[in-house]
Amino acid sequence: MGKFVVIGERIHCISPVIREAMNTMNPEPILKRAKEQLDAGATYLDLNIGPAESNGVELMTWAVQTLQGAFDNVPLALDTANMKAIEAGISVYNRAKGKPIVNSADAGDRIGYLDLAAANDAICVALCSKAGVPADNDERMAYLQEMLERGLTLGMEPEDLWFDPLFLVIKGMQDKQMDVLEFIRQIAEQGLNSTGGLSNNSNGMPKHIRPIMDSAMVAMAMMCGLTSAIVNPCDLRLMETIKSCDIIKNETLFADSYLEV
Amino acid sequence: MGKFVVIGERIHCISPVIREAMNTMNPEPILKRAKEQLDAGATYLDLNIGPAESNGVELMTWAVQTLQGAFDNVPLALDTANMKAIEAGISVYNRAKGKPIVNSADAGDRIGYLDLAAANDAICVALCSKAGVPADNDERMAYLQEMLERGLTLGMEPEDLWFDPLFLVIKGMQDKQMDVLEFIRQIAEQGLNSTGGLSNNSNGMPKHIRPIMDSAMVAMAMMCGLTSAIVNPCDLRLMETIKSCDIIKNETLFADSYLEV
Repeated sequence: MGKFVVIGERIHCISPVIREAMNTMNPEPILKRAKEQLDAGATYLDLNIGPAESNGVELMTWAVQTLQGAFDNVPLALDTANMKAIEAGISVYNRAKGKPIVNSADAGDRIGYLDLAAANDAICVALCSKAGVPADNDERMAYLQEMLERGLTLGMEPEDLWFDPLFLVIKGMQDKQMDVLEFIRQIAEQGLNSTGGLSNNSNGMPKHIRPIMDSAMVAMAMMCGLTSAIVNPCDLRLMETIKSCDIIKNETLFADSYLEV
Repeated sequence: MGKFVVIGERIHCISPVIREAMNTMNPEPILKRAKEQLDAGATYLDLNIGPAESNGVELMTWAVQTLQGAFDNVPLALDTANMKAIEAGISVYNRAKGKPIVNSADAGDRIGYLDLAAANDAICVALCSKAGVPADNDERMAYLQEMLERGLTLGMEPEDLWFDPLFLVIKGMQDKQMDVLEFIRQIAEQGLNSTGGLSNNSNGMPKHIRPIMDSAMVAMAMMCGLTSAIVNPCDLRLMETIKSCDIIKNETLFADSYLEV
């Protein structure tokens, strides 16, 4: 399936520093965090501007141009509840390093994001859920098929739908983890791409445990065929694990220096 | 399949300290290394006395009694080319904490170890190879079936055959790693147990990389259903990964303190 795609999650308005930078359109904190993530090995950067109801179009346009201008057209995932802001972002987006990602559609209220991605020749993160956590993998697969058919009907390439199995929190849903991993395998068996907010699995765990648990999870998920994840690339252990799994899967050629690449 | 079984590999005559202790029947260095491995989370300890052609019977008897006497009948894997030494070890072995493991048979010259295990109601590590590295998984599976049938004919329980897929070195056989992992899945699909010298995958790599690569490998292998490995339990990162995968697989119940257990 090719080398694992890391989407850096750290340009997010939930961070006070980033929110302030977005409010004042101050590029420095955003560029700093972008550089940290790219230096750590991110391929895509997620750009989450939140609801952005009033100024979304202006903000997304500015942020896309600022990031792509500073980092040689770095590919981006555009993440906001404001659909017009996503469209505006795509209209100024340079595709030299990869299509934009629309983050995200689901099989329920957010199905419009899939239509938006299709209309703009973008990749779409497609969450395999409708309302709440699916009961089982049959339900997840029904949503996947629904979104896949819709995307294909709208002219999308199947590889531009990145299906999100919805990683579940271990504290509370420990007995569902293997279902999620098995579903990733089912996605891969169809030759389809997958991604997701992997670190949700370790939500609520002590801080020192999270990189350990996330690393175990990403290796198991990559064994099942996960092709991407939306994660913190500054988590060194996680990135070491991703790079090692790419070696084991023969997606990158081993060299003694592979961790530094 | 139950919690992952760690077999500690560090009581091995290849270590100068251990060889000297075995030569002089000095218990201290052996007990020290046993304690380190048990404290780190090993369940079984491998006891490798080498060829031991002249004094194998005496040495194995002494070592089994010394270890089980000091550590409350710790379960052991008996590892030597001297079959009489294994029989002698089993004859004084206390099964309170688990059957002895005979390490190891293969489908070729070492098939006699399977017969020995069967005759002594022991677990047997059964290497799925005959002469050299099998060409593919069909060949591995043929050896597995051959050894499984032989074991069952001799009255063994299927769960007492722990099939070893033969972990291959990445430096040189990088493109074969997914075959090995796929074979582990095939073993698990038959409901059978598996084990092996997992860290062989990182042989020849820089020292600081080995725990990173071994951890990625064990997580991927546990996803495929590996039930045990013969490893260095004093590799902290590896043990953290094994414990985390057991959580994800719901084999142990999550608690914030799970890494300390």
